[in-house]
Amino acid sequence: MDYYSKQISDLIASLSSLPGIGEKTAQRLAFHILSMPADQVDKLADTIKSARKNVRYCKVCCTLTDQEICPICSNPKRDHSTIMVVEDTRDLAAYEKTGEYNGVYHVLHGAISPMQGIGPEDIRLKELMSRLSSDEVKEVIIATNSSLEGETTAMYISRLIKPTGIKVSRIASGVPVGGDLEYIDEVTLLRALEGRKEL
Amino acid sequence: MDYYSKQISDLIASLSSLPGIGEKTAQRLAFHILSMPADQVDKLADTIKSARKNVRYCKVCCTLTDQEICPICSNPKRDHSTIMVVEDTRDLAAYEKTGEYNGVYHVLHGAISPMQGIGPEDIRLKELMSRLSSDEVKEVIIATNSSLEGETTAMYISRLIKPTGIKVSRIASGVPVGGDLEYIDEVTLLRALEGRKEL
Repeated sequence: MDYYSKQISDLIASLSSLPGIGEKTAQRLAFHILSMPADQVDKLADTIKSARKNVRYCKVCCTLTDQEICPICSNPKRDHSTIMVVEDTRDLAAYEKTGEYNGVYHVLHGAISPMQGIGPEDIRLKELMSRLSSDEVKEVIIATNSSLEGETTAMYISRLIKPTGIKVSRIASGVPVGGDLEYIDEVTLLRALEGRKEL
Repeated sequence: MDYYSKQISDLIASLSSLPGIGEKTAQRLAFHILSMPADQVDKLADTIKSARKNVRYCKVCCTLTDQEICPICSNPKRDHSTIMVVEDTRDLAAYEKTGEYNGVYHVLHGAISPMQGIGPEDIRLKELMSRLSSDEVKEVIIATNSSLEGETTAMYISRLIKPTGIKVSRIASGVPVGGDLEYIDEVTLLRALEGRKEL
């Protein structure tokens, strides 16, 4: 890239190191940034630095937050006896968007994946188990992804919790609402059949 | 976005203000940044700031560069008697990638567009004309885009330069190499016909 001067090539290289940003997109973003007012660029850079510096794991549920304890965990109106276990903060946000779930969460930051060498000790499972030792928790809803890793993790966690007598459930797997059967994979179709409910 | 804490929402909002970055991509980038080592994030932010601060227009050709005069304009091995006029620095880079053009450039930073209220005085045309007053320049190759704005600009510049006696040319318009006639628009097909050459 010696047809751009060093500062421009460095900017393009930095941007293209981000996931899903290819060479062309990085170029487009770089030239957009170079054409932005300087104070806006400084603000963008400072927002990036400050977020990385101040965002940490919530001491209770391990979600990413800029506070010691996240707003959900510190909200007395939420039902603290129900914990939904998710893989990451984005999954938590997805359930929050529904506006219907009133319990609290636990963010694992990953899923067990023997293929990638990620074991139970690499995700925030110890933190979940220590939360369960308080007598307040009545149900744990496992909402890990419906992938191989997500299912493995769900299975592992349920076996770990069962002996404690706390209720463990798994979110339903099946045909998505609005989904056209024709375009849905066989595994999902079989799951939907297995999970059928009497009307 | 109150399901994310403020610093995270701010980061997502900043990223999604960039062109071509939607809400979902911004979220993905934000969580990637939050998971990067802090020193790498600082480096990314500093690269952005520093590029914006240090990159300016080359005093000769107006391309974006971090030097007073860009490496192409200050290279004595380039043919300074031929100037290729392009709309932006990325177009310059596109021709540099071919490795075959040995002249110099002039970057307009835009094209004349009466529809968007961009007139000849809004692009770096004055700078081009003052370069032409040196007796060194023999040919101006107009390589603005093959769009309505690019063509308008090419026409305008050629009329401006003709009286000076300097040779003005326009890059050829036609069927792209490897292009399948079936999929090429009619205007391009007609241009290719008009521009036919005897074999």
